[in-house]
Amino acid sequence: MSASQIPETQKAVIFYENGGELQYKDIPVPKPKSNEILINVKYSGVCHTDLHAWKGDWPLPTKLPLVGGHEGAGVVVAIGENVKGWKIGDYAGIKWLNGSCMACEYCELSNESNCPEADLSGYTHDGSFQQYATADAVQAARIPAGTDLAEVAPVLCAGITVYKALKSANLRAGEWVAISGACGGLGSLAIQYAKAMGYRVLGIDGGDEKAALFNELGGEVFIDFTKTKDVTKAVIDATNGGAHGVINVSVSEAAIEASTVYCRANGTVVLVGLPGGAKCKSDVFNQVVKSTTIVGSYVGNRADTREALDFFARGLVKSPIKVVGLSELPSIYEKMQKGAIVGRYVVDTSK
Amino acid sequence: MSASQIPETQKAVIFYENGGELQYKDIPVPKPKSNEILINVKYSGVCHTDLHAWKGDWPLPTKLPLVGGHEGAGVVVAIGENVKGWKIGDYAGIKWLNGSCMACEYCELSNESNCPEADLSGYTHDGSFQQYATADAVQAARIPAGTDLAEVAPVLCAGITVYKALKSANLRAGEWVAISGACGGLGSLAIQYAKAMGYRVLGIDGGDEKAALFNELGGEVFIDFTKTKDVTKAVIDATNGGAHGVINVSVSEAAIEASTVYCRANGTVVLVGLPGGAKCKSDVFNQVVKSTTIVGSYVGNRADTREALDFFARGLVKSPIKVVGLSELPSIYEKMQKGAIVGRYVVDTSK
Amino acid sequence: MSASQIPETQKAVIFYENGGELQYKDIPVPKPKSNEILINVKYSGVCHTDLHAWKGDWPLPTKLPLVGGHEGAGVVVAIGENVKGWKIGDYAGIKWLNGSCMACEYCELSNESNCPEADLSGYTHDGSFQQYATADAVQAARIPAGTDLAEVAPVLCAGITVYKALKSANLRAGEWVAISGACGGLGSLAIQYAKAMGYRVLGIDGGDEKAALFNELGGEVFIDFTKTKDVTKAVIDATNGGAHGVINVSVSEAAIEASTVYCRANGTVVLVGLPGGAKCKSDVFNQVVKSTTIVGSYVGNRADTREALDFFARGLVKSPIKVVGLSELPSIYEKMQKGAIVGRYVVDTSK
Amino acid sequence: MSASQIPETQKAVIFYENGGELQYKDIPVPKPKSNEILINVKYSGVCHTDLHAWKGDWPLPTKLPLVGGHEGAGVVVAIGENVKGWKIGDYAGIKWLNGSCMACEYCELSNESNCPEADLSGYTHDGSFQQYATADAVQAARIPAGTDLAEVAPVLCAGITVYKALKSANLRAGEWVAISGACGGLGSLAIQYAKAMGYRVLGIDGGDEKAALFNELGGEVFIDFTKTKDVTKAVIDATNGGAHGVINVSVSEAAIEASTVYCRANGTVVLVGLPGGAKCKSDVFNQVVKSTTIVGSYVGNRADTREALDFFARGLVKSPIKVVGLSELPSIYEKMQKGAIVGRYVVDTSK
Repeated sequence: MSASQIPETQKAVIFYENGGELQYKDIPVPKPKSNEILINVKYSGVCHTDLHAWKGDWPLPTKLPLVGGHEGAGVVVAIGENVKGWKIGDYAGIKWLNGSCMACEYCELSNESNCPEADLSGYTHDGSFQQYATADAVQAARIPAGTDLAEVAPVLCAGITVYKALKSANLRAGEWVAISGACGGLGSLAIQYAKAMGYRVLGIDGGDEKAALFNELGGEVFIDFTKTKDVTKAVIDATNGGAHGVINVSVSEAAIEASTVYCRANGTVVLVGLPGGAKCKSDVFNQVVKSTTIVGSYVGNRADTREALDFFARGLVKSPIKVVGLSELPSIYEKMQKGAIVGRYVVDTSK
Repeated sequence: MSASQIPETQKAVIFYENGGELQYKDIPVPKPKSNEILINVKYSGVCHTDLHAWKGDWPLPTKLPLVGGHEGAGVVVAIGENVKGWKIGDYAGIKWLNGSCMACEYCELSNESNCPEADLSGYTHDGSFQQYATADAVQAARIPAGTDLAEVAPVLCAGITVYKALKSANLRAGEWVAISGACGGLGSLAIQYAKAMGYRVLGIDGGDEKAALFNELGGEVFIDFTKTKDVTKAVIDATNGGAHGVINVSVSEAAIEASTVYCRANGTVVLVGLPGGAKCKSDVFNQVVKSTTIVGSYVGNRADTREALDFFARGLVKSPIKVVGLSELPSIYEKMQKGAIVGRYVVDTSK
Repeated sequence: MSASQIPETQKAVIFYENGGELQYKDIPVPKPKSNEILINVKYSGVCHTDLHAWKGDWPLPTKLPLVGGHEGAGVVVAIGENVKGWKIGDYAGIKWLNGSCMACEYCELSNESNCPEADLSGYTHDGSFQQYATADAVQAARIPAGTDLAEVAPVLCAGITVYKALKSANLRAGEWVAISGACGGLGSLAIQYAKAMGYRVLGIDGGDEKAALFNELGGEVFIDFTKTKDVTKAVIDATNGGAHGVINVSVSEAAIEASTVYCRANGTVVLVGLPGGAKCKSDVFNQVVKSTTIVGSYVGNRADTREALDFFARGLVKSPIKVVGLSELPSIYEKMQKGAIVGRYVVDTSK
Repeated sequence: MSASQIPETQKAVIFYENGGELQYKDIPVPKPKSNEILINVKYSGVCHTDLHAWKGDWPLPTKLPLVGGHEGAGVVVAIGENVKGWKIGDYAGIKWLNGSCMACEYCELSNESNCPEADLSGYTHDGSFQQYATADAVQAARIPAGTDLAEVAPVLCAGITVYKALKSANLRAGEWVAISGACGGLGSLAIQYAKAMGYRVLGIDGGDEKAALFNELGGEVFIDFTKTKDVTKAVIDATNGGAHGVINVSVSEAAIEASTVYCRANGTVVLVGLPGGAKCKSDVFNQVVKSTTIVGSYVGNRADTREALDFFARGLVKSPIKVVGLSELPSIYEKMQKGAIVGRYVVDTSK
């Protein structure tokens, strides 16, 4: 596609105030700055964070008007004059961290997601619910050629997030990782990454359907909280002393507190979900005597992104999705708001 | 001292039931097992944990009757037949961890303090409030020849504990460590170890006397909570973004929660005190977005012990003490119970 | 088996001077010291180190007379009075490191194989080429109940050694490990451990039979040095920039030097074989500019042992062996001396 | 300084072919690209690498014609349109790594010095031997306001290099670091950084003057190779078992090989100098049995730069220099070529 083929306008879903109407309409195609690339977004995953951005119920204010979306997979169609390492036609991904200052102490050490000036896709920067989106060239995800752009979309946020959380648990192959909330969108990716990393996977979730999915994805021990009287004891027994690492995909305060108990001595509890206002409560005596660690993990950096995509490209992680047209996005927000979402939706921007 | 010179009986302070009378009296000298050494204790520090052991108010039951004390410094006078690496006349120390199983996964990795079968001096094993005490030869502290046995006593628990806590904060030289409760017995040792490790030290405590002590020990920034409206903000400002590490010597729940806020992004909060029943509460959103770590640190292992003693032997850490006779120990328990202790008491077992 | 059932004498292969006759004969059953267990050795692997011990061609002198062997798998039949954590009937393994001082700075940090007073099975301590052997209770390997004692034998040295070498390479799942000498006794175990740890495995060895074995064991890329002109270039190409880690099972000086070149920038070369007198030569300019690491790895500690055995017990690592009677051991030494060994021999001490 | 005040031409030392005449003359002031800043260089250190760049005797070809220099300290006078985080008047430093691709796996993990497309000041990019030089805004060093720009110049390469080397040695406070070549330009900075990091410093160099300097800078044990028969043994004795870390500032092959012997078991040898064609030779048996590490360290990244500058700004590291005019630079090259340099020269670009 030559520059002359990039249209002036495009389809997008946009809103003008938090909680306002989600309008599927024509808007101008943005121009990439000198450090940006322009991506023709083919598919975009829909994430619960998109709901928060629309509602505006997080401490950080959003840009307005806003095009949401931060799991966009597409093709590079234009490149800022100052960009290195990209060429027209490359597959590229839009992720939560659109760009960062590259100057602070966090950026210096590749912890760009902790940058105080982080620019966030679909939050402070127009995101992937449009056909053409700009992305900082340094942060944009490099998707290997030949990748299925629809299936890869959820990897760009959910996949990276759980992969980094697993790295933050600092485990060795052969150790037990417990995934609290194992069979939702994040959890089902976490099971597969954990397996590919050589860990033994214990999942906690509720119901027979979840149990079946857990086993299908390669989990080893499933604990059904709807059937188990003492989940904490069950985890400790199954892992012969407690899980070496815990990934808290579930955002229930009680589940998080339980995870500090069934975590093995010297083990690590990872916080990864973002429940507004929730506290992680840990008994000091227990944490000291067992010398456990509780660590927060927030999306991932460029290396985490590359690695998470590589596991996907090598076929070790599958991402089951439901594809609908971008024009149907407002109805998906409605489902999210009702808690009626099952599985991961991906929107096709051409429809 | 030859074996024939070891007396049959000795002076000790012993109690027969939790909370019962602390009796200063003659009791038999214990015989070392094949894996133990017998130490002629010269001096023993007195720690707040000794009060808990006497009261029996911790979850773990104590041995009864019990001789307390776990900061004992003395001289090896007898050696079990199976002991390697010790000789009569060596200086040796009795520390909280008297012995461990050496067979579990924690002992295998030198995390003996996390051993489920840990044997604890002055708690499950008669401790250092007697003239002759037995100690597991593997765990007994090796005190360098020439060390002042009175001054080194508090290093054997308080010193090791804060040194290990500082290691657990995982800092680089040049980074900021905040010590919450900087000028008590543990804190004043922590300031000095932190300084010797190349860290920049910020202390939080109350009162001008504390401020003076802090500066004398080499601290850089003191925050007086009796004069500072917003301690959290003050720490963040003084450290230009938050402390890289926090050592929670204070056991106040509110102070611990505050430390999770003034900790810098990517930084580490260390829990080291043992307040019964207290929770560490951390805002999940904050901990995820800042990707901070909260870790429990529990005394130290043999290497931590050797290293902590080495800093003391090299003169980089001073241990100000008040020496009284062992016979006066009951009155020190009284003071501890009233919260009327100032500084660190050490008992001389010969008096 | 009760103590009264332990015989006074037993079959063993013993030699009285280095290079002297290997005698299959009756010798007394040793008595365990207070810190030892007595193991009824059922099977023992035969390792190239046994040849060095017999010849006496390493810098360190051997005990004489000597019973060799350091891959012994059997059953505990007696227990020293001071031993914790073992009971009669447990499965136990004799490994290279029979015991260590437990007092030095290396033992303190669980690096017992670096202890200057290490006691070595089949070298400074009578080993596993006998029906009953003593082992330090702390160091003896804990073999899970139900394990095949013949197949597990080579894991006790070869398995632990390559597993620890892989850990020393400090890789993440998804990274490339090159195994130089991939299809010998050590290499074929290394392939399997690497696979179970989530690494991508490249093997270097010679011949179609080796290639077939490599693929069968789960390797991904095989480079046949008999057919490849520029092995270094081939490794760099296949791994898209060099291997993240290299395990030098081959002890060829040229192969080791090559590994410092095809190692990726920031990668790690592990030295694990013990060629007498060989040097590892690394170009300083290259090593600085690529900031690579070369590290020596020496057997493994108790945790490495437990973990290596766990992978075997879980069926992730297979150990193909040839079992012969202990009485045939002298002929195996002959084969080793001629370099005519193919595969791993295990002796059955009952024959 | 407003843009209109930036002159069209400036003084520089330039050469047109490798080994050709070093001309002090007027050349055009370069224009910063959109991602660059323009620095008014006040002072520049002179490093041995500058001699290599001029001669062209390293594998990598230089830019031609070339303005050398990579230790430039000055003031920002112009800023590319795409630059974040800099403002006119900021102090800024030109260092060896002028820029990197920010896209490769090394840049992703903040190891920009290992970037295959690294752009090098005074080598592939005109350097600091001119009054106005361009620097990539991401990589340019942020020098704290108020810093002495002459004294800080050598910190920008020599300081960062030894500081990173010390970090690469992976030591704890209280451990021994040996500096081979302790009292040259790099070594004398290394002593001071090591001291500030809490390490115990042993230096190896020759002569009484060097010994005096070593002691003055805070070193603990000096080994004079002109007076010591067995340097290796002397290091092992003085450190009670070998140095935990070794910084090889000396580029002698024999000295490097010796360092692999006097390095303590489990310790780390750091290669940091760049002797063309030299090999680091390490006895494989020794390295395996002692499980030591040899690692290459190559300048430092942005965080290393910030930290190294911070130690200097806090007064913990002094940088003794001799200041001469830029016009005298050709005579300094002559001295370097003759090996007649003593101390660190810094050129004042205004003279």
